Parts: sequence; C-alpha cells; structure tokens
Amino acid sequence: MSLKSKLIKLTEDVKRASQSVAELSSNQKKQVLARIASRLKNESRKIIRANDKDLRTAQQMKLSDAMMDRLMLNAGRINHMAEAVVQVAKLKDPVGEVLRSWKRPNGLQISKVTVPLGVILIIYESRPNVTSECASLCFKSGNAVLLRGGREAFYSNQAIVDVYQTIFHRHHIPKSAVSLVPVLDREAIDELLKLDELINLVIPRGGEALIRRVAEHARMPVIKHYKGICHVYVDRDADLKMALKIAYNAKVQRAGVCNAMETLLVHQAVAKKFLPLYGEMLKKAGCEIRGDQNTRKILSGIKAATEQDWKTEYLDRILSIRVVKNLEQALEHIQTYGSAHTDSIVTNNKSTAEKFISKVDSSSVMVNASTRFSDGNEYGFGAEIGISTDKVHARGPMGLEGLISYKYVVRGNGQIRS
Amino acid sequence: MSLKSKLIKLTEDVKRASQSVAELSSNQKKQVLARIASRLKNESRKIIRANDKDLRTAQQMKLSDAMMDRLMLNAGRINHMAEAVVQVAKLKDPVGEVLRSWKRPNGLQISKVTVPLGVILIIYESRPNVTSECASLCFKSGNAVLLRGGREAFYSNQAIVDVYQTIFHRHHIPKSAVSLVPVLDREAIDELLKLDELINLVIPRGGEALIRRVAEHARMPVIKHYKGICHVYVDRDADLKMALKIAYNAKVQRAGVCNAMETLLVHQAVAKKFLPLYGEMLKKAGCEIRGDQNTRKILSGIKAATEQDWKTEYLDRILSIRVVKNLEQALEHIQTYGSAHTDSIVTNNKSTAEKFISKVDSSSVMVNASTRFSDGNEYGFGAEIGISTDKVHARGPMGLEGLISYKYVVRGNGQIRS
Repeated sequence: MSLKSKLIKLTEDVKRASQSVAELSSNQKKQVLARIASRLKNESRKIIRANDKDLRTAQQMKLSDAMMDRLMLNAGRINHMAEAVVQVAKLKDPVGEVLRSWKRPNGLQISKVTVPLGVILIIYESRPNVTSECASLCFKSGNAVLLRGGREAFYSNQAIVDVYQTIFHRHHIPKSAVSLVPVLDREAIDELLKLDELINLVIPRGGEALIRRVAEHARMPVIKHYKGICHVYVDRDADLKMALKIAYNAKVQRAGVCNAMETLLVHQAVAKKFLPLYGEMLKKAGCEIRGDQNTRKILSGIKAATEQDWKTEYLDRILSIRVVKNLEQALEHIQTYGSAHTDSIVTNNKSTAEKFISKVDSSSVMVNASTRFSDGNEYGFGAEIGISTDKVHARGPMGLEGLISYKYVVRGNGQIRS
Repeated sequence: MSLKSKLIKLTEDVKRASQSVAELSSNQKKQVLARIASRLKNESRKIIRANDKDLRTAQQMKLSDAMMDRLMLNAGRINHMAEAVVQVAKLKDPVGEVLRSWKRPNGLQISKVTVPLGVILIIYESRPNVTSECASLCFKSGNAVLLRGGREAFYSNQAIVDVYQTIFHRHHIPKSAVSLVPVLDREAIDELLKLDELINLVIPRGGEALIRRVAEHARMPVIKHYKGICHVYVDRDADLKMALKIAYNAKVQRAGVCNAMETLLVHQAVAKKFLPLYGEMLKKAGCEIRGDQNTRKILSGIKAATEQDWKTEYLDRILSIRVVKNLEQALEHIQTYGSAHTDSIVTNNKSTAEKFISKVDSSSVMVNASTRFSDGNEYGFGAEIGISTDKVHARGPMGLEGLISYKYVVRGNGQIRS
C-alpha cells in the first residue's frame, strides 16, 4: 500500500470513530476518562520502559539536556499526567449546549446547538505528556484525534495511546478515536494536510518553521501562533514598585515560553528612576539587556538593540528595552513589532489603561498583570489545547471551547418559503 | 510598480483603514450607513449609467439572459439596495460586547470582548448588489473590506463603492475602508491570497471551481461552502400532505440556489402512496425526476438515477429520488452523499425526529420545514454575508457574528505568576 493510501485509510478510520465519540453521553465520557486516568497510573512501569527506549535513542542522537529533560517520564510525571486527565473528566461537557434559541414570526423554532468538530490533527514535538493532554481534551469534547508526535518520543507516545485504546475497547468505543500516525516522515504530514474532507482542524504545536509549513500546505483550517513577542509598557503613571515586580516576573519567571516578555517599553518620564533598579534585578538573574539609545544613556555597558531585536522572540534570558516618548509611541511600537499575542501596561491612570486596551489588538491585553498569565489554566479553562494569534474561530489561550462547532436545529410544523 | 507591489500597497491601505473603522462608535457607524443609503438613492442615475456600460460589454460577451438579469440594475433595484443598507444600520453593533467576564482566585478580572476581524477579502461574481451588501456588513462590524467583484460588473461596482467612499471622506473615515481591487486577472487573486499578514479572512462567493481554488491557495482562513446537496427525508410517520408541500417547496420554489433540495428520500412504507402524488406535482412544474429502482417501479417513464446523481448539485429543476428501507438507510445516504449544508425530515414521530437531529451532521438540520429556510434573513440575522459548510469559526448562514473575533482583557493590581 502506498504511503498516501495508508494515511487515507488511517484517517478514514479516525473519521468513522469520530461519529461514535460524538454521540457519547457526558456521563460515559466522564467514566471513560476516569478509567484512563487509573490505567495510566497502573501502567506507569510499562510507559517508563517505553520512555527508556526513546531516551536511549535520544542519547545516541545527542539531544540537548533540556530536550532530554522534556522527553523524560518518571512515576511522578505520569502521576501528574493522570491527574490532568482526572481534571479534564471533571470539566463541563461542551457538547449539546443550546447557545441560543429563538422563534421566528412564521413559527419556526431555531436553536444553535454545540457539536464536536469531528477529526482533529495535532502535530507536536517532544514532551510525551502532550499526547495525553490532547487525547483527553479531544475525547471530552466529542472529537476523534490523530496525533503526530515527534520521532524522539515515539515509543512513549505509543504506550500512552495504548492506555487510551485499551479502555476504549472495553467500553465499545472505536480505538481509532485516539490514533497515532505511525509514519514519521515529513511527507506523511504533507499528505495528511491534503485530507480536508476527513480532517476538520489542524493544530501545529512547535517551532515557527513547522507552523509556517503547516499553514502553507494545509487545506483545512489551522489554529496556530507563530510566535509570542510580548511587551510590557511601564507608563508614566505606573506604580514603579509594581512595575518592577511585573516586568521581572514577565521576563525571568520562565523565559522559554511564548507568553514571556521579549521587549520592555518605558515612558521617558520614569525611565531614569525605573531602569537602574530594574537593570540591577535582571543582572542578578543573569539576564542580558539590549537597549535603544536612551536606555543606554541610563544603563551603561549594555548592547545596542537593533531593528532585528524588536522582531525577535528570544525564548531566553535576553530582553530588549526601549524608552518611549509617550503612550502613542508605545502603541506604535507594539503595532509594528508585536505578534498580537499578549501585551501589558502598568499604570494607575484609568484613562490611559482603557486607551491601551482599546488600541492594542492582541489576543490578550493586560493592565497591571504579568504577561505570563496568558494561559488556559490561568484563565480558568481547566486545560489548554493550544494558543491562537489568529482571529478566526479561536483566539488566545484555547480550551475545550476551541474544539467545538455548532449546528442550527430548525423545528417547524410544515412551514414552506413563499 | 509590479502587480505584486501594487496589491500589497492597496492592501496595506485597507489594513490601516481597518484600524480607524474598528474604533468608530456604534452611533457613528449608524449615521454613516444612513447617509450612504440616501446617497445610493440620490446617485441612482449615475449608478445606472455605469451599469449600462457593463451591460453593453456583457451583451458583446454574449452573456446568458439569466446572467444579464443578475447584472442589471434599475431604480427599483437600487432602492432595494439602499433599503438593505438602512436595515444593516439598524442591526445591533456586534463590536465591544462582553461575551463573558469572570474573576480568578488571584483577583485577576478577565473579560472576553468582541472585536472586529480586521481586513476581509470578498471574491464574488456578477450581482452588483452584493457589493453594497458586503460593504455595509463589513463596515457595521468594524472591518475594512477589499472587494474583488466580477469583470462583468466592474463599472457598476465602482459606482457603488464611490458612494461609500464619498460619505467616508465627509466623515473623516479613510476611503480605503471599502476598496475595490482594480486588477481583475486571476493572478491578482493569487497574489492577494498570499497576504496573510494583512488579510484576516477570505470569503469566496461563486462557483465550486473558484471556491476550491481559493481554499487551496489562501494562506489565511477561508469561509466557504462548496455546494449544497440538500435532502428531504419523508419518514414513515410523516403527514403526507405536509410532506408534499415541503418537498415541493424545497425543490421548486427556487431551484438554482444552494439550499434547494437535490435528493428526496422516501420511506418504503409510504412511497407507494406519496410518490405518485408528488410525481404529478413535479411534472406540472416541469421538473425532471431521476429515481432508483424502487422509485421507478412506482413512477414509470423516469430516468434511472446513477451514483453520480446522488453527488450532484443540479441547481436546476431536476430531482433524484430514492426509496429507503428505514431511517438508518436515509441517514447513511445523507452521510455518504450530503454536503453538510441543510437536511430536513418530515415526520410526526418525535423520537425519529430527535434521532435525525442528533445523527445528521449538517450546518442546518430541520424537522417539518423546507430546506429553503436555511438563510441568514430567514433565521433573523438581518443579513447574510455568506454561508459556511465548514465547522470552524462560522457554520451555516453567517450574519454579522461571523465577522467578529474577540480578545481577552485582563485587569489586575500587580499580579505575578509564581
């Protein structure tokens, strides 16, 4: 069988499974997820053995320590994975909700009712716990999922998917409801991205290059964010103590993630007071600063920030700083260089805050809070399947709501159109 | 300037304009639309002159009578166009609505607030009133729009866009908020479809070939429906008088539209009683019937329906009919051959109706009503910008709601993440 036919057959199975999953009751889904959580714990030795196999290959491939750590599973991490499934089981079922219902003058009763999307393809890398996260969220929302994880986590992912499929089998749910793509070459991704009649949505999670490739080739909708160039703007009316705390947290608490700050903008009226204190804090944290001319007048011995710096997502302990004349210049900077992910203002001036909120067209706009809060769990969604900087369908941190669609149900008693 | 740079410049202007339009108040938008409606009426002679120019070219191109009729504008039709703008002006502003608002345990106040999408590209054919419909809906929802109408309506479209731009100018709104693509070759479309950093959404309205081309080449989200293969299923528990009325209306009231019925499914228990009466009605209406074997046993002298018929959107007075054994076979038929647009059951059996509603995964599922009701105006949306058989973002008839996105606004008092 050719690669193409193999993938079509696989995806057709997932599509068929999606029809069964869509019809499960809230209770059934809850029970099944609870059983999966227990089995993940019970099978942890088996999962760890599979993970060992991946780790050995990774060692031979000379993966970095950070990558090895992301890949590694132990009893504690598997326990955590199982606990996350318990949490997903407890979430409100997003399917079958009547969003709106109204009666037309001709007597037609129309309701807008939530339904699952169908088949979701998720393309991701390294961390094997993403496998269980995505599988549980897709199942909870009545969807079937096709998982294409990284080569380096192949056996770990398979062991986790096995747990899901075993429990599905016991509950007479088609195993294909959670399926792993067994072929890992890029060609396989390209073929899958053509199957827009079988796959309803693709979520690529990974580096920018992967995401751009997917967006370019996919014929079905894609939910994505290329990068997070998040800003904190310290306004002239900021509480500077608060600003220090927020700007430090946004950069240093975890630098390698998309909601970390990459550029700090400081109003010129407070720069002389704020920057020396802040510079000291970052220095202690081992964080490199690159600044514009005015920043460098205040902080000596730092590198100059170039045009390229404003456009860069460092994902590291590096920060670019610019002193701005006023709110307008800060807004212009964010509009020009931002990635519409998350931007925050620190100010005690209400009207300035409202102006910032209305003018900044990012998926999350914050006042007096760290950009690091831009996250499905922090927003209280109970889970996060991805984050979107697109504006269509889902925007920002995306929980179960992003995995559903709706249909119109029209009930009549013989109405015809005249 | 190359075609590419020309189109980029044009689209950048539209993007800039979108930022101004996004900030207009509800009242401003309402007033501006009211002025546009008056001016459309006042300028009707000018619009008709431009339309004459298009009609003359169309005559030379030997367009069909139906196409000529679609293209033609007269005082009555322009009046109707203006009235539609008045109606759009009266719709509720979809921007700035707080969809949800909640407080997190750490005190963060989060709101999900509607915002415009930004720049919408609409690619359409022939009817010049689509120009005003789309322009008014995009403006009302705070978006800027790039219109790429058909070659045959170029001067008419330009005259209509002129009215919008003149009023915008008087109200200090950038003219580019409603822009016409001045280059009509296909190459221009291909170039525009690459501009995913400037255009937020594409809506192709036209034939299936055009829509498929757009879906394949667009790097930004596309809202579309390829075709409408709508079914009516006459159940064994149907009120046959009602079934006759609905099945007749769904096919004959207007055959050339996407929500007209293309295939009728009839339960075997009622086929012998129903089909002769129905066949008679269709014959009188000059409608051709193609049937499966069982249908042909009841209706003599009709053509056999082939596999191809079940997959065909006739858009004409042709109907395929199949006699089915039971509800399950009807559902299977719809799942196999339907286009997930609109499907209707005629039955008095509540449990059969509910089963049909839950199993049919179409954008509109109806009980005892004509498929012809699947329409933004009939659903009470006040307007329809398009119809979607996709499941992502918008599904089914799409009004102003389909033209908006949202952002998360997070208000804190110094929260940082630990």
